[in-house]
Amino acid sequence: MATAAFIGLGNMGGPMAVNLIKAGFTVKVFDLVPEAMQTLADQGALVASTACGAASGVDVVVTMLPAGKHVRQLYMGANGQQGLIDVVAEGTLLIDCSTIDAQSARQVADAAAAKQLEFIDAPVSGGTAGAAAGTLTFICGGHERAFERAQPALTAMGSNIFHAGGPGAGQVAKICNNMLLSVLMVGTSEALQMGIDHGLDPSVLSDIMKVSSGGNWTLDKYNPCPGVMESVPSSNDYQGGFMVDLMVKDLGLSQEAALATNSSTPMGALARSLYVNHGRQGHGRRDFSSIFEQFKNKG
Amino acid sequence: MATAAFIGLGNMGGPMAVNLIKAGFTVKVFDLVPEAMQTLADQGALVASTACGAASGVDVVVTMLPAGKHVRQLYMGANGQQGLIDVVAEGTLLIDCSTIDAQSARQVADAAAAKQLEFIDAPVSGGTAGAAAGTLTFICGGHERAFERAQPALTAMGSNIFHAGGPGAGQVAKICNNMLLSVLMVGTSEALQMGIDHGLDPSVLSDIMKVSSGGNWTLDKYNPCPGVMESVPSSNDYQGGFMVDLMVKDLGLSQEAALATNSSTPMGALARSLYVNHGRQGHGRRDFSSIFEQFKNKG
Amino acid sequence: MATAAFIGLGNMGGPMAVNLIKAGFTVKVFDLVPEAMQTLADQGALVASTACGAASGVDVVVTMLPAGKHVRQLYMGANGQQGLIDVVAEGTLLIDCSTIDAQSARQVADAAAAKQLEFIDAPVSGGTAGAAAGTLTFICGGHERAFERAQPALTAMGSNIFHAGGPGAGQVAKICNNMLLSVLMVGTSEALQMGIDHGLDPSVLSDIMKVSSGGNWTLDKYNPCPGVMESVPSSNDYQGGFMVDLMVKDLGLSQEAALATNSSTPMGALARSLYVNHGRQGHGRRDFSSIFEQFKNKG
Amino acid sequence: MATAAFIGLGNMGGPMAVNLIKAGFTVKVFDLVPEAMQTLADQGALVASTACGAASGVDVVVTMLPAGKHVRQLYMGANGQQGLIDVVAEGTLLIDCSTIDAQSARQVADAAAAKQLEFIDAPVSGGTAGAAAGTLTFICGGHERAFERAQPALTAMGSNIFHAGGPGAGQVAKICNNMLLSVLMVGTSEALQMGIDHGLDPSVLSDIMKVSSGGNWTLDKYNPCPGVMESVPSSNDYQGGFMVDLMVKDLGLSQEAALATNSSTPMGALARSLYVNHGRQGHGRRDFSSIFEQFKNKG
Repeated sequence: MATAAFIGLGNMGGPMAVNLIKAGFTVKVFDLVPEAMQTLADQGALVASTACGAASGVDVVVTMLPAGKHVRQLYMGANGQQGLIDVVAEGTLLIDCSTIDAQSARQVADAAAAKQLEFIDAPVSGGTAGAAAGTLTFICGGHERAFERAQPALTAMGSNIFHAGGPGAGQVAKICNNMLLSVLMVGTSEALQMGIDHGLDPSVLSDIMKVSSGGNWTLDKYNPCPGVMESVPSSNDYQGGFMVDLMVKDLGLSQEAALATNSSTPMGALARSLYVNHGRQGHGRRDFSSIFEQFKNKG
Repeated sequence: MATAAFIGLGNMGGPMAVNLIKAGFTVKVFDLVPEAMQTLADQGALVASTACGAASGVDVVVTMLPAGKHVRQLYMGANGQQGLIDVVAEGTLLIDCSTIDAQSARQVADAAAAKQLEFIDAPVSGGTAGAAAGTLTFICGGHERAFERAQPALTAMGSNIFHAGGPGAGQVAKICNNMLLSVLMVGTSEALQMGIDHGLDPSVLSDIMKVSSGGNWTLDKYNPCPGVMESVPSSNDYQGGFMVDLMVKDLGLSQEAALATNSSTPMGALARSLYVNHGRQGHGRRDFSSIFEQFKNKG
Repeated sequence: MATAAFIGLGNMGGPMAVNLIKAGFTVKVFDLVPEAMQTLADQGALVASTACGAASGVDVVVTMLPAGKHVRQLYMGANGQQGLIDVVAEGTLLIDCSTIDAQSARQVADAAAAKQLEFIDAPVSGGTAGAAAGTLTFICGGHERAFERAQPALTAMGSNIFHAGGPGAGQVAKICNNMLLSVLMVGTSEALQMGIDHGLDPSVLSDIMKVSSGGNWTLDKYNPCPGVMESVPSSNDYQGGFMVDLMVKDLGLSQEAALATNSSTPMGALARSLYVNHGRQGHGRRDFSSIFEQFKNKG
Repeated sequence: MATAAFIGLGNMGGPMAVNLIKAGFTVKVFDLVPEAMQTLADQGALVASTACGAASGVDVVVTMLPAGKHVRQLYMGANGQQGLIDVVAEGTLLIDCSTIDAQSARQVADAAAAKQLEFIDAPVSGGTAGAAAGTLTFICGGHERAFERAQPALTAMGSNIFHAGGPGAGQVAKICNNMLLSVLMVGTSEALQMGIDHGLDPSVLSDIMKVSSGGNWTLDKYNPCPGVMESVPSSNDYQGGFMVDLMVKDLGLSQEAALATNSSTPMGALARSLYVNHGRQGHGRRDFSSIFEQFKNKG
């Protein structure tokens, strides 16, 4: 079986690494937090003392980090230190699962290519639950051959694997999707509240819209109005789910992407403003469907 | 079999009346345009010389008119003239299928109730194709008993019949849905264009988003980017479909509704502004998915 | 000297009527609140028992009411009751100082004209302080001759008298101005907060922008950031001034006006959404510059 | 008298350098375009063959470049090449007049400080006319002592010199101002068009608003409605003035600044979307007040 390095063992990365082990990979891990490594060691991982140590001599490297600058530094090095692309064995496949700006992803892909290494950007969706269950969605950018080579590792961790295009395309597609998601969530929230203001039952209105031309993912899976659906954050005081702070991060990435290509995204930009204000009012750690509360009448 | 009056035989009303005839209703019709009545007479309708004449002595009255003021005048009279509610037989069921402001719908329902008549507002979606095929969606407001009594007529003309709530609720639900639809369309357009600006294939991006959390009706049925789907207006130079001018009308109704209850609809209001500008630039008679062109780079 | 009727003696109307008395008018007053009439009687006004009684036999009628429906009912009558235009003497000049929708103003002007009466819409700005000091601004709509005839009454109550155009133009101009004001206030607030977020002193930034191309009335007279200017609501916990609820009302009128002419006002519509949300969160009775707080970081 | 280097002799930099010469500075110049240097040589400048050559041995360096990356590369070097801070004499004052992102300005200031050099960011407003006339406004960021030392050079080129705060503050203040300007321009345009749609004369409406609470710089100096003011771009088919493309650039910088501090700027973000769409429709080289045309009815 193949050997893999997994670097970045947070809420997402930890369970993803476990699934690689379960699928039969020999996994070397590294994280700045010793406890995170110990948890993986208990599951059978080998612990490395540095990221470069973990990545040396494996078939595939998987990384899961917070932001573009971390990814650039890890792969390309900084301040005279070597990066992963300087130390990995010839033919090592590099897979970054972080959600970062497309420009950073392309830079790393270019730097890897300069050393004859294949790199794909493979941001995920599905949250911590999907990471644990191995049902994540991967949206990949990179060349066809690298995408094919990544299948064993990705299918060990997820159930939907998309190929969005060349280097960086995975990040762009994920950002487009999440920007659109924020628009669906805000638009659905304001429509439901307007119905409520006119005396309609939000469950009835949701039922109508979800099979009509207003139908969208939030009505199907994630209704923002408390009491309409069971087992979603809105029916649990907006606990759990996908935090406002993370949506703000993704909307920031979407606006960076819009600036990079001089694109206009009026709805996405407005959603970002509303989510930033919501977060600044102290709701950053609540589920992103709590934007519904911005429309309620508490006066 | 029952007798019905049908008043307002335009692009929508005409084929709807035909379906009533096909379902076995004896139908008396009226329209200000003689040719429209002749078309129905050829299909077996009885022609009346006035709206009140059509409505006298039938079991059910169905109306399909452009705006709230026409509906109010027709049912309640104006300038000393009698309205339908003054002339119909006891027990006549009144069904208005126009898309109008909720306040007018409630006024007519109240005026009808004052004369012991049952009235439902039953705006439709599905367009002229649905009207011809008898597959319209009806979103109804009114009391339960009236809604039940309306089933034979409505099922003759449509395939999805929703009961949104009390008087006016049909209009509110339709307006909420169409406002949300406009948000989906604009949000999807800007996301697709941003992907294109970054070099992604819009078909691939659409495929990814439609099974992800950005999934929505426009990606399933009505992709705004030319060439992604066959047989939709975007692949036919935005001909046919649902005109920008009609979306502007519906978004006007949604903003009236928001004003009536002091509701806030930032996305819907922004969509209205973008659609008004689009229409004012000369695109009023193109399909509403042509808003996609506002984001393209023609510079 | 001339005789005048003043109907509507609230926070604005009361002191305006006093200024008419001080200018030498014989003033007959009416209000639904007896105490309001008693206050005016103490200042020398004659008290009438009905609005029509007050308006009978005077040279000029001045009205100050909450909304369009009150103005329409008062002037045109309702439910079989006579309106002012049915009872005033020939040649009576009618001046409505309420801030209402333009359509209502035009309806009343038309009804008055049908009885050979001259009517002007003359909404005011300047607040209760301006009403007391007799320094209000009047923005008038109506025919030139009526505007000229209104000068003695208007100059008794205000110091700036504008003629915006024909019937209804006063309301339109005021609504345009107040919509723009809301945009200035929100735009200035977000610019100041972004400067603060980057470590700038808001007083320094305000000083720079107010003499640069960002200069606007809010920076000159009404800085929304606490501590920048003395004697403005922002430096007094947003007490006093012009309430959020009143700005929401004016922004509602502006959106009604935009709907009436199929106009697009993206900034005004967005300002309305933000102000409605702000009011719904419980800030309706604070000064409208408190929208600044929506941008602060309380997280 | 002092010696200065001027690097970047475009539409703005060229006339600024001329004004330094007129004020008595001995000026060494560099630009990538030989013709631009020849024009300055004709005015008495010394021509250098490299930027570093121009900057060596002078008292003050002034730079005027397109974007942050050019400024970073010029001052800090790149690809093994030296930057200005590596070659200038001890005590040389560095003044960058480019409009760039605040982060780049801070990076260069830090790099300069590490070599005991003083640097100020001093973006300008006033356009090519102000550059030629020596009446530019400079909005400066940097330490007090550097700001004082820059006075002779800045007063030679401009008439308003502001000190916004520490390093980068000049860029932040300029970006805040220009973002607010875009909001004033769009908000004023939509208000004027709504008045026109209701039959008002835009000159009368402008006169009213400019002395009321809607008053702002665009009504005073730069009315966007053709025919209201003479000698502004709107009365000259939107030729001259400040191009849409440049406003799009500044709004991009404002959104970068908002992302950097997680700030929310709903009005500024919306203005950017509208300006990007306007530019993409082919209006990028027209004056930015042409956004008014987005609201007109051409249908």
